[in-house]
Amino acid sequence: MKKYNFFAGPAILPQPVLMKAAEAVNDFAGMGLSILEISHRSAQFTDVMERAFTAAKKLLNIPDTHEVLFLTGGASSQFFMAPLNLLGSTQKAGYINTGTWSTKAIKEAKHYGELIELASSKDRNFNYIPKGYDIPSDLRYLHYTSNNTIFGTQFAEAPKTSIPYVCDMSSDIFSRPINVSDYMMIYAGAQKNMGPAGTTLVIVNKDELGKVDRHIPTMLDYKTHITKQSSFNTPPAFPIFVSMLTMEWVLEQGGVEAMASRNEEKAALLYNEIDRNSLFTSPIATEDRSLMNICFLLKDSSLEDKFMAEATEAGCMGIKGHRSVGGFRASTYNAMSKEGVEVLVQVMKHFEEKNA
Amino acid sequence: MKKYNFFAGPAILPQPVLMKAAEAVNDFAGMGLSILEISHRSAQFTDVMERAFTAAKKLLNIPDTHEVLFLTGGASSQFFMAPLNLLGSTQKAGYINTGTWSTKAIKEAKHYGELIELASSKDRNFNYIPKGYDIPSDLRYLHYTSNNTIFGTQFAEAPKTSIPYVCDMSSDIFSRPINVSDYMMIYAGAQKNMGPAGTTLVIVNKDELGKVDRHIPTMLDYKTHITKQSSFNTPPAFPIFVSMLTMEWVLEQGGVEAMASRNEEKAALLYNEIDRNSLFTSPIATEDRSLMNICFLLKDSSLEDKFMAEATEAGCMGIKGHRSVGGFRASTYNAMSKEGVEVLVQVMKHFEEKNA
Repeated sequence: MKKYNFFAGPAILPQPVLMKAAEAVNDFAGMGLSILEISHRSAQFTDVMERAFTAAKKLLNIPDTHEVLFLTGGASSQFFMAPLNLLGSTQKAGYINTGTWSTKAIKEAKHYGELIELASSKDRNFNYIPKGYDIPSDLRYLHYTSNNTIFGTQFAEAPKTSIPYVCDMSSDIFSRPINVSDYMMIYAGAQKNMGPAGTTLVIVNKDELGKVDRHIPTMLDYKTHITKQSSFNTPPAFPIFVSMLTMEWVLEQGGVEAMASRNEEKAALLYNEIDRNSLFTSPIATEDRSLMNICFLLKDSSLEDKFMAEATEAGCMGIKGHRSVGGFRASTYNAMSKEGVEVLVQVMKHFEEKNA
Repeated sequence: MKKYNFFAGPAILPQPVLMKAAEAVNDFAGMGLSILEISHRSAQFTDVMERAFTAAKKLLNIPDTHEVLFLTGGASSQFFMAPLNLLGSTQKAGYINTGTWSTKAIKEAKHYGELIELASSKDRNFNYIPKGYDIPSDLRYLHYTSNNTIFGTQFAEAPKTSIPYVCDMSSDIFSRPINVSDYMMIYAGAQKNMGPAGTTLVIVNKDELGKVDRHIPTMLDYKTHITKQSSFNTPPAFPIFVSMLTMEWVLEQGGVEAMASRNEEKAALLYNEIDRNSLFTSPIATEDRSLMNICFLLKDSSLEDKFMAEATEAGCMGIKGHRSVGGFRASTYNAMSKEGVEVLVQVMKHFEEKNA
């Protein structure tokens, strides 16, 4: 039976990417060797790195002011690496707290400079994106989490300010166009729209580096990885390879503009059903609903196990909601087909017919 | 034509491991999904993590005093994470400098405490392992690099002292038995005997943690990863999966004792030929020769391209020496067959017949 992968992350990857990935594990580039066992300095692998840089730059139209890095350690490592590299000990950074990941970013950043929590949606279990807060003009940067995987909210657009952003885009990178020039730095753990777990994308304005006077270990210094083109040490070769394939797949599909319209269409299908269906409800403020992670509840929570069983039977995998929200969460990343969402919508319709 | 993979790293992996890895990229554990696109919190993947911990503990007979972690960032990140977690600012650590990686470890560690370079083989381009140096009794730990991938030397045994070791075993982990109780910490980038690039093994004595009073970012604190069993954030799932398969393969082959005798046999075959063959020579002190990375030179370096071409034609891949040594380097990690070494020895014999 066909499976529809609604996991929040690590998450669905395009089928053609998975086929090429499996082929390369058997035999890469006609070498008679697996991609898992070749030198990262080989011509075959340095070509992979170049294609990965090229694809990322094309997809987000990255200007020459900004450098692209493929690192490790996940977004969780960028929570401290961003301020370590960018925030002087007497400087101020503004953070918007929209959930679990923002909270963790704030906790780590506090140790490097003056941290100002500009706004928070914690008062309502992070079910909306804060608006109408003041932004001091002397901030070094403004940090936000563009999409909140756990709570199902997303910034429809970046906060209105001329202060450069530092942004955690782990769960909506490559899902829509962005204006990279507005960002001092962007980071994203790979394991949603970009590729499998094991690499982390960093896009950083190189003119903003080298301005803090604290000691930075070599491996934590963005300048190290810029100089060595992300190969100062052995990079996470296979995760970068699969990310490269995924980014090239997005380009083939028409780029982030095409992804944005497909993602809007898929999300509309599901949110419309949630709003229409008498059994379900959305906990999220309408204008802040995520196009990536669609959270929904059964009004009668005693039906949850039954609905989960029927969804699973229809091939819908990974729709259990995060424990801090409950209910259900269907993640509709770039690689999720419209067909997959339609199957889930049908399950919801049938469930209403039998249980309303 | 069959290929023999002598790359120094990322390096040869066992064929059955590669086959299982490719299968899992297509469909993992009968889920109808790729291992690259499933949640790290799924029952199927938490089983992978448990099997990985179990295999590592069995292979090295790791006592309960020590914890096993699967991190990211390579050994290069452990160069600073080890002293960050283990070395108080007024404490002393002793380092033995046996090459590029030791040098880098020393450079990073200097920032955390008093660093004493106990001995160095830099005077002869690191072609031997230093002996007969004094070891102060008040060291917090003694750091060494058990095998030097670039220069082709290896500690036949650990330095004689009762001070606990911190050891970079990136290129000879799981190649022979070790007594883990003697080590405060062991670390190894995966990409040689353990698995593909993208994860880093850390084995640490948990009683030695929490004794420094500096701030440690959450992701750099070993205690974080002990508490969360290496899943504080999304781990590098596929590199850990393939490492798990590789460790289980070593167990099936008879464990590290069986590996040690096979590695000795393979290395003897090749070193005997280097010593016997009138065209070749070894730059390495006999008693310090690595069983993993076998460096050798042509006495007449003008023949290098010709020999490289003949080796390549016979299917021997990746034998070019590192630029800081020159000549050739054949890496004979666990997964390299005796047959592969015999093919290379035959190429050397034929080359002598035609060129002596």
